[in-house]
Amino acid sequence: MALRTLSAKNAAALDEELMSAGAFSIDQLMELAGLSVSQAVFKLQPISKGNRILVACGPGNNGGDGLVAARHLFHYGYLPTVYYPKQSKNDLYQRLKKQLEDLKVPFTDDFHCALKQSDHIVDAIFGFSFSGEVREPFSKVIEALRDAQVPVLAVDAPSSWNIEDGPPDSGPGKGFMPGALISLTAPKPLVKWFKGRHFLGGRFLGPELAMKYELDVPEYQGLDQIVEVPVEDSKL
Amino acid sequence: MALRTLSAKNAAALDEELMSAGAFSIDQLMELAGLSVSQAVFKLQPISKGNRILVACGPGNNGGDGLVAARHLFHYGYLPTVYYPKQSKNDLYQRLKKQLEDLKVPFTDDFHCALKQSDHIVDAIFGFSFSGEVREPFSKVIEALRDAQVPVLAVDAPSSWNIEDGPPDSGPGKGFMPGALISLTAPKPLVKWFKGRHFLGGRFLGPELAMKYELDVPEYQGLDQIVEVPVEDSKL
Repeated sequence: MALRTLSAKNAAALDEELMSAGAFSIDQLMELAGLSVSQAVFKLQPISKGNRILVACGPGNNGGDGLVAARHLFHYGYLPTVYYPKQSKNDLYQRLKKQLEDLKVPFTDDFHCALKQSDHIVDAIFGFSFSGEVREPFSKVIEALRDAQVPVLAVDAPSSWNIEDGPPDSGPGKGFMPGALISLTAPKPLVKWFKGRHFLGGRFLGPELAMKYELDVPEYQGLDQIVEVPVEDSKL
Repeated sequence: MALRTLSAKNAAALDEELMSAGAFSIDQLMELAGLSVSQAVFKLQPISKGNRILVACGPGNNGGDGLVAARHLFHYGYLPTVYYPKQSKNDLYQRLKKQLEDLKVPFTDDFHCALKQSDHIVDAIFGFSFSGEVREPFSKVIEALRDAQVPVLAVDAPSSWNIEDGPPDSGPGKGFMPGALISLTAPKPLVKWFKGRHFLGGRFLGPELAMKYELDVPEYQGLDQIVEVPVEDSKL
């Protein structure tokens, strides 16, 4: 059975509803989202196979999830490095950054150099609110992700993919197919074109909201904040 | 080797520092604290042994940790019931309550009745800022916890215990020895008198702050947000 997907428009509406009627703060939701991302990295990249994780963060919420994930990865024993070239002045992101600085997690300005010293990459550049063109510095970064020799986990969407229509026909993301994807709260329509391992995260969606947005709450196991979705289940 | 303890005064100072210089929000810290509590329940009370968890919440932060734990327990498949007789008007607690209401987690006014229908209790009444006398309705509740036939997990402190001096010589908490305790961030001096299973939670303390407050960061395993501390390690 395929998991139902959530359009970009409905993903924004659900986030909004979680934070208004649902009474969640963005701090809470981002903490849980980033925790999910960190757990997917833990499954994909055991520390014994290489503990250097490069987390590429975009300017918005997707980047914020990456910042939270990097902090949890540090506590698990990884050596995260963060690439965060377009830093928001938003208080929350500034605080998430400070939390990493206090742990001495390095921030890098040179993605290509950092890439060569990494065992695994987290693509937290663009999420479900992405549309339009990729601009610098991210177009070069996405090209590097596309050509990377180490595994990439994309958060919510492979960056540069259209949320509804999947991989772009041109531009830096043409041919970019990360090895793994973690969908937050629910898969977006782009999963139809995705060919790697697929995880779902965000174990805070209640039955009522799931019903309202016509989503499936998958069977998480034990204390896991993520669940791996069999490939056939993530197709439309 | 005994884990070093954190006095009530230093616990307050550390919390304050995490939220000022450390740039954490209380939403974040409480989410992670409550998540730790829920993981300790999961270890102590497998769902197959009885999934009815009564969470007794006090008016302050300890109660807030309980509210977060109840939400995570719901998502794990437990049936939490919340006793929360002195509800703060504070926005955060109101929101945590609303999140539970949206999941249809029941709130009860009758602790004694709820106790009879529970398999496990979480004592989130008073934490490290407790001092002085226990007042109603909590004195009767603590007497009931003391006499309970089902296991009790205390959050940060067995409620009514003095943070520095341990179990009280008189009053409702005299003789109250819960079967398990989860210390958040670091054990408080009262652990010297504690005889049950002891967990530590709060996997967000970095090496610098641990050094500043002369605390130990124990070896958490895998993705665990808690670690069980051998009994000899929690003695002074």
